Amino acid sequence: MMQNDEQQQIDEQMMRKALAEAQLALQKGEVPIGAVIACKGRVVARAHNLTETLCDVTAHAEMQAITAAANMLGGKYLPECTLYVTVEPCPMCAGACGWAQLGRIVYGARDEKRGYERFAPKVLHAKATVTVGVLEDECSDLMKNFFADLRK
Amino acid sequence: MMQNDEQQQIDEQMMRKALAEAQLALQKGEVPIGAVIACKGRVVARAHNLTETLCDVTAHAEMQAITAAANMLGGKYLPECTLYVTVEPCPMCAGACGWAQLGRIVYGARDEKRGYERFAPKVLHAKATVTVGVLEDECSDLMKNFFADLRK
Repeated sequence: MMQNDEQQQIDEQMMRKALAEAQLALQKGEVPIGAVIACKGRVVARAHNLTETLCDVTAHAEMQAITAAANMLGGKYLPECTLYVTVEPCPMCAGACGWAQLGRIVYGARDEKRGYERFAPKVLHAKATVTVGVLEDECSDLMKNFFADLRK
Repeated sequence: MMQNDEQQQIDEQMMRKALAEAQLALQKGEVPIGAVIACKGRVVARAHNLTETLCDVTAHAEMQAITAAANMLGGKYLPECTLYVTVEPCPMCAGACGWAQLGRIVYGARDEKRGYERFAPKVLHAKATVTVGVLEDECSDLMKNFFADLRK
């Protein structure tokens, strides 16, 4: 087993990449959410929310990352992969994680209004593990500032 | 308000189109599920499950239909649309229906093992109405026969 410290360091590195994706979304006027999928320490997909740009509610960062990772790895199941996403997945994205059998989900900020933990708490794969709160403040601030700016 | 008989007739006509899509999936060796989205009596999208063909767990019939309908209509919200799907949507697809604000969902066969009603009963839009059991036997038989053949 990996040391906890080492795992935490890797998680933060990966979450920084997800945050960089969220920044790309922000620059396009999108709700700033980014995602990265890693497999054995290697990034196999990165994506950011594009629902406005693509005029498509299904274009969440996680959905695109799952599609891209399956394409990259040549298989639709991702049990050895970890999804890093800046905000708690919604039921749609968590459902996709379940179908893809994603082994681990790491997210930054909770989404109590729209997140899967409230609306679909059992949709992840039975063996999936979840880590919450990695770089939480940065992930959360990005969202809060975005919605505060919208209201100005 | 439309007469119930007239609505039922339209629902069956649309579900026949969804069943035709499910047959296309079957011919490709896919789990036979088809979907159609109608807006004011007009079909604006049709799709069938392509998860194997595309090696992508997100390629459910409903997801593709939602993306296609938004593209066709030029807007990502579909409050005046009805989704016809041969089998009860999963939480991923029901979550997408919620984001798209789909006004009405009509499905044929229940899916007690994987359906949204069990795992994510509150993800549809608050104003959405749901009709269950249109051409239920045909929709259900298609699935039962597919899985029975797989086990042979």
